Amino acid sequence: MYVVDAAREIDSANARALDALFEADPILVDVRPAIEALPGMTADTVLASGPPMPWPSYSGGQRVAVLGGIVYEGLARSLEDADHAVNRGDVRLDGCHDYACVGSLAGITTASMPVLVVEDARTGLRGHCTLFEGASPERLNYGMFSPTIVRNLQYLAEVIGPALAEAVRSVPGGIPLRPIIERALRQGDELHSRNTAASALFLRDMVPALLGLAPERARPLVEYLTSGDYFFLRASMAAAKCMADHMRGTTGSSLVTAMAMSCKEFGIRVAGLGDRWYRGPLPDVEASMLFNDSTADDIEVMGGESIITEVCGLGGFAQAAAFPLQSYQGGQPHDMVRRNLQMYDITAGEHPTFRIPFLKYRGSPVGIDIKRVAETGITPVMDVGIAGRRGGQIGAGVFRAPLQPFLDAWADFQRNVA
Amino acid sequence: MYVVDAAREIDSANARALDALFEADPILVDVRPAIEALPGMTADTVLASGPPMPWPSYSGGQRVAVLGGIVYEGLARSLEDADHAVNRGDVRLDGCHDYACVGSLAGITTASMPVLVVEDARTGLRGHCTLFEGASPERLNYGMFSPTIVRNLQYLAEVIGPALAEAVRSVPGGIPLRPIIERALRQGDELHSRNTAASALFLRDMVPALLGLAPERARPLVEYLTSGDYFFLRASMAAAKCMADHMRGTTGSSLVTAMAMSCKEFGIRVAGLGDRWYRGPLPDVEASMLFNDSTADDIEVMGGESIITEVCGLGGFAQAAAFPLQSYQGGQPHDMVRRNLQMYDITAGEHPTFRIPFLKYRGSPVGIDIKRVAETGITPVMDVGIAGRRGGQIGAGVFRAPLQPFLDAWADFQRNVA
Repeated sequence: MYVVDAAREIDSANARALDALFEADPILVDVRPAIEALPGMTADTVLASGPPMPWPSYSGGQRVAVLGGIVYEGLARSLEDADHAVNRGDVRLDGCHDYACVGSLAGITTASMPVLVVEDARTGLRGHCTLFEGASPERLNYGMFSPTIVRNLQYLAEVIGPALAEAVRSVPGGIPLRPIIERALRQGDELHSRNTAASALFLRDMVPALLGLAPERARPLVEYLTSGDYFFLRASMAAAKCMADHMRGTTGSSLVTAMAMSCKEFGIRVAGLGDRWYRGPLPDVEASMLFNDSTADDIEVMGGESIITEVCGLGGFAQAAAFPLQSYQGGQPHDMVRRNLQMYDITAGEHPTFRIPFLKYRGSPVGIDIKRVAETGITPVMDVGIAGRRGGQIGAGVFRAPLQPFLDAWADFQRNVA
Repeated sequence: MYVVDAAREIDSANARALDALFEADPILVDVRPAIEALPGMTADTVLASGPPMPWPSYSGGQRVAVLGGIVYEGLARSLEDADHAVNRGDVRLDGCHDYACVGSLAGITTASMPVLVVEDARTGLRGHCTLFEGASPERLNYGMFSPTIVRNLQYLAEVIGPALAEAVRSVPGGIPLRPIIERALRQGDELHSRNTAASALFLRDMVPALLGLAPERARPLVEYLTSGDYFFLRASMAAAKCMADHMRGTTGSSLVTAMAMSCKEFGIRVAGLGDRWYRGPLPDVEASMLFNDSTADDIEVMGGESIITEVCGLGGFAQAAAFPLQSYQGGQPHDMVRRNLQMYDITAGEHPTFRIPFLKYRGSPVGIDIKRVAETGITPVMDVGIAGRRGGQIGAGVFRAPLQPFLDAWADFQRNVA
């Protein structure tokens, strides 16, 4: 009886957490420099992806990206100076998630970088994310740093951010993101590795506001919004952070509220277990497609928090909505369906409005339950961009989360919560 | 030997026809009143969908639409006068297809109606189609006529057409439609009954031009382009007419160059058989979803030439690219895949760039071969909007073409061509 009651209580707590997630209504309300938007942000703070680690643990591309971010922000003159600055404590290094923010890949977020401000209308809860750096493989968040990258980041901060801010603020009530996500799922996107339709739908919603801008302000913004198909990924991430945080702190719930990677670790947070990160090794690559002549040996994980989308029933959890991903991250339709169906085994619910046409419009699996993961041994799949050892994006793939953090969290949960 | 040689000759002619289709590059170059754009169009001509018939044969909604078109055009004062005008020969009634044009549903095209002008860059071949009347079920082409419909048609002719024309003409070289079609196939459209992604992609391509219009001219156009998801259907139809006409007149080819319906008949044209229509009964409804409380008894076929898209490997021939259609025209993913695969049995080729993600990016089946249809007894499937007996759109469905016109054409082909 005790066990049954405990299971019932967990189910009931999980249902409450999911209800909160399902009610979330993320709306893009503003675009502002991180220092103005992120709670707790300071001029000398640099945020990076993943459960925070001591500075010496950061290596490879993510380390380069942190140092580059420090130099870009004017907190040091060179990458070497930047290293000293962190060691001296002149720069505070922290994880995005504790600043109502998520980071793409390396996840570097510094004070002056513009972030998308996404707010839930009812609760006021906010999620944030920086702007997409563009289609060039040479990007700070893919572990590179160069004058070209600095110029591009400045252009985002000085031209694109302010123009987008003006356009967004001119739309009464902001731009609701949930309808875009729901429609994009019917247009081949899973809102993580594919945001092609969502980016076009976002533009569509913005056109009236764009007509209201001065033409010289509108033109570069239109150029930016239409030059690739990934603008919306950052909006999807900020929306997912906002939605996922609605589950945060739900007493007694065994649902995952965050998944994140640094260059060294994969970590999860659980609704009923506070803000502790349960850490484990980096995920395995289950399928991938690499650009040009890159091989598996060239892959380097530099972190990533875009997997917050999977927490909300998107990305790998909606792969069967996105068959076009075959040509980007490999795999075949049959495998995508199989993986997607598998996720129903480890989730507590089905999303009421994130629906997958090929599965007869079944709601996507959502609410990753550490109990079910621990019992089945099945871990989440995640659609992710892949960085290379020499920096830059070299491909994309399907990652499989490690089991250990879920086992540790479930053991802890049984000891302390259930 | 003779038979083998003959078959080889047909295959070779069909390959030539398909090559011409595949090379076609339809570009939206202009928007003009039909009288300025359509070869042979006159002020007193009214075009309707389907193989042309004597006036007394037109009935129901298509008859109302023809009469309404005559009144709208100012060629008569009332529907009754319009009837007299046709009987007296004061109004020439003809089929769209002979004017490088295709009509949606009833297909009414009159002199002052703006048409999309789509041109192949290399051959100069053009296809045309009127503008989408909007999402209201009350539309001339769904067999209705009212002051509201007249006002809307005037608005299209006086406001939307000219604004769209200005925007299109301002884009150097025009708007290539093939890339939009190819992308939309990866975004859940089949470019006949679903044009959701294509409409957003078209808008995306137009945004720079829209910024160049006077705001008071741009705003109503943006409102029109974003108020529904069907703008692009007419562009897809005009593009398909342009592409299909590249096969027209290919000596010795047994491929279908046009399919069209009036309110009474379904007809096909065949590349090697000139411009003769092979006629048969109306198609069967194989699956459908009807709005509100409509039943199968309420269905009335009023014609339709949007099935030119199926001739080009789109629509029903690319159903497996458009699982979202389930919620619009009924059916289940499994049936959509089955029907789509079946079409490979009656087609001579696979489209090199119209690809279906779920079928591992296989090219869509294209080049409907009357020989294969006659031999297998399998006839084309077509995704179509469904009109009701009281006018207006009452649903959508999958139609199955009648066999007889294909048998007749094949018999004729064997007698006169092979």
